[in-house]
Amino acid sequence: MENNTFNVAVLGAGNIGSAVVARLIDLDKGIVGLNVKKILVRDTKKARDFSKDLLTDNFDEILNDDSIDLVIEVLGGIDPGKEYIDALLKKGKAVITANKDIIADAGCDLIQTAKDNNACLYFEAAVAAGIPVLKPLIESLRGEELTKVLGIINGTSNYMLTSMEEGSSYEEALSTAQELGYAEPDPTNDVEGIDAKYKAVILSLLCFGVSPSSDELFTDGISGITKEDFEWAARLGKTIKLVAQIDNKNGFNARVHPVLINNKHPLAAIRGALNAVVVEGDNINQLVFSGPGAGSEPTASAIIGDVLSACHQLSSEQTNWYPLREFEGEMKSFEDVESSMFIRLSVNDEPGVLAKISGTFGENNVSIESVIQEGRGDKAELVLVTHEAPEKDIKNSIDQISALDSVTTVTSTLRVYV
Amino acid sequence: MENNTFNVAVLGAGNIGSAVVARLIDLDKGIVGLNVKKILVRDTKKARDFSKDLLTDNFDEILNDDSIDLVIEVLGGIDPGKEYIDALLKKGKAVITANKDIIADAGCDLIQTAKDNNACLYFEAAVAAGIPVLKPLIESLRGEELTKVLGIINGTSNYMLTSMEEGSSYEEALSTAQELGYAEPDPTNDVEGIDAKYKAVILSLLCFGVSPSSDELFTDGISGITKEDFEWAARLGKTIKLVAQIDNKNGFNARVHPVLINNKHPLAAIRGALNAVVVEGDNINQLVFSGPGAGSEPTASAIIGDVLSACHQLSSEQTNWYPLREFEGEMKSFEDVESSMFIRLSVNDEPGVLAKISGTFGENNVSIESVIQEGRGDKAELVLVTHEAPEKDIKNSIDQISALDSVTTVTSTLRVYV
Repeated sequence: MENNTFNVAVLGAGNIGSAVVARLIDLDKGIVGLNVKKILVRDTKKARDFSKDLLTDNFDEILNDDSIDLVIEVLGGIDPGKEYIDALLKKGKAVITANKDIIADAGCDLIQTAKDNNACLYFEAAVAAGIPVLKPLIESLRGEELTKVLGIINGTSNYMLTSMEEGSSYEEALSTAQELGYAEPDPTNDVEGIDAKYKAVILSLLCFGVSPSSDELFTDGISGITKEDFEWAARLGKTIKLVAQIDNKNGFNARVHPVLINNKHPLAAIRGALNAVVVEGDNINQLVFSGPGAGSEPTASAIIGDVLSACHQLSSEQTNWYPLREFEGEMKSFEDVESSMFIRLSVNDEPGVLAKISGTFGENNVSIESVIQEGRGDKAELVLVTHEAPEKDIKNSIDQISALDSVTTVTSTLRVYV
Repeated sequence: MENNTFNVAVLGAGNIGSAVVARLIDLDKGIVGLNVKKILVRDTKKARDFSKDLLTDNFDEILNDDSIDLVIEVLGGIDPGKEYIDALLKKGKAVITANKDIIADAGCDLIQTAKDNNACLYFEAAVAAGIPVLKPLIESLRGEELTKVLGIINGTSNYMLTSMEEGSSYEEALSTAQELGYAEPDPTNDVEGIDAKYKAVILSLLCFGVSPSSDELFTDGISGITKEDFEWAARLGKTIKLVAQIDNKNGFNARVHPVLINNKHPLAAIRGALNAVVVEGDNINQLVFSGPGAGSEPTASAIIGDVLSACHQLSSEQTNWYPLREFEGEMKSFEDVESSMFIRLSVNDEPGVLAKISGTFGENNVSIESVIQEGRGDKAELVLVTHEAPEKDIKNSIDQISALDSVTTVTSTLRVYV
């Protein structure tokens, strides 16, 4: 790729777009010759760090410029980015996007469009920003049958959980995350697991050839987690992480929810705004990729890596896509997934209460691994951990138990990573 | 790459070679069409798991077979593998090797030979076996200026250090490692850091464009580490790891030696026969790749990943090599590297001993971070940790201190990862 120079356009000039443009301009010409030709912005008159001559507010100027080889989409949101990417690929241009929403929504179709038009489509930055993990998954590990993928793929919620592990309340953790710019004024997408869900859809597609729909992918966030949950986690030698878990052993299921996870598990060591992806298979056993999960510089690094891949492909006029995996096997619905559940109950401290509760679990074929009773009188608290059992049976048990007279409140329920 | 079928030869049919052949035969044809055509063995009559028709003991039958597109070298040792690889590349064949000795010895030349002949050369399995880390380093991170690479890249010594952390003596840890097949009957290469040194040379080349010579790469192993060192490590909130460290900030230096490392550092969590590579740079901050560092199945996985990359390249008749990094900067000799040193001394418990010792450090411009005295009388032990100072000054200090009348023995010296 030494002798070619490629013309590049960038769609969007926010934090990430600006970082990308700066890196493109500084890139060592010994690696690849690049020429930033156009930057799509809303307002061409606003003062920016780069020449006004590069700016346009008209997408068609980029789409119809045959000299542009490669386009980087960093607009954010699904529209109009999705239509732009589709149109660019149909023109045979290489496209790089950091946009998880678009790839989760339409990745499979866009990959097919890229193939049909012998065009490149790369999106390393869409999952776990600065960690080069999608390329190893798509290419290096394409010959492996994977059994499980686990990820801490939302930096904001991991930052907050780490603060809570260190003693903050949920509210304190959220407000610090907002002050530091990790969390948005409306934090819903991060704290309710929605951002992680999009990324889990992308990992499902790349690792197993499945694009689960929103309904199929059970999602629960961290807004219900309390300091007391962390105190209990510590007593059990565990911590709490928001984990995307994708299994393909005895059926495929992908889900995002908080888990109690052993302190010795590699994900327990992922602190602050870091991300990590754990990949398991019979031959590779367990691989862990970790690094910065957010921020404009790490995201720009992932985009630059993709730019180099794309230039490598462009110089050979080669189809870039490793064949996507074809899903073989059965989908498993979330209610059939087997979970181990940690349950805290406020109970009336009276004879027979444990017998009633354990009887209810027994009737639902859920067996109990451990029970701890704390306090007496109306402050009595019962903490149970179940063995693995189908989610539907655990749910029925909890519903029935919460209706018992002797149970005041089901204070918290948390899945235990086994 | 869907419509091509590639003919493959394998040089060597030991544990890894056999695993590779089995995986090639089983590989999903939807990924790529592969046909195992020849396997080079010493003894064509020995019973094996695959057809005798594939076997040959004559390398020229493979070299001169124009239908063979891709050759996998898993012979072990430098000779005759190096000459074989060179000859195959000159015929334009794609070559994949797991052989760290060859790549450490001649990687730079062989990469040039591959380029000159528009041939592929891949060696993912040569460092950290099953972890796909070289491809991300060569490709995804090629646009990054890296500042540091750290690695636990010898599984045997890490297995032994983990056993010692759990209470074994060095001898017990070694004999268990030998029983489990992790360590050879002669464990020198693993325990003295020589295997890690070869891998550090490869990482230096790929990450910084430098191939340090054997003399330039300071190497020390783990055979001097004792249970007592681990007890001290635990008191300091640290553990001991054999680490390859490559720095390119204020001068380039690569070295392999044991370090006292904080329990919160990601490498402290790498236990047993696992490997890990930590990569640092201003934009990416810190990335960690971890997974199985040895074993025929993980090694075969890395080789299969390379086979897919090679087929991808072959189908485009494209130069495969990202331009190697060109070293810019200065080499720093080990004696100028700044280290913090943990030093245990047996001393005569008499007035003025600490003044003499600290005076000696002071004369050499080495300042002391902490001192702990343990025991009294002839069991008195002094444990010092120095601030960072040039290796040569620390060495002079220790030489002079060990000559003092009041110092009985320098029991151990260990560098502290800062």
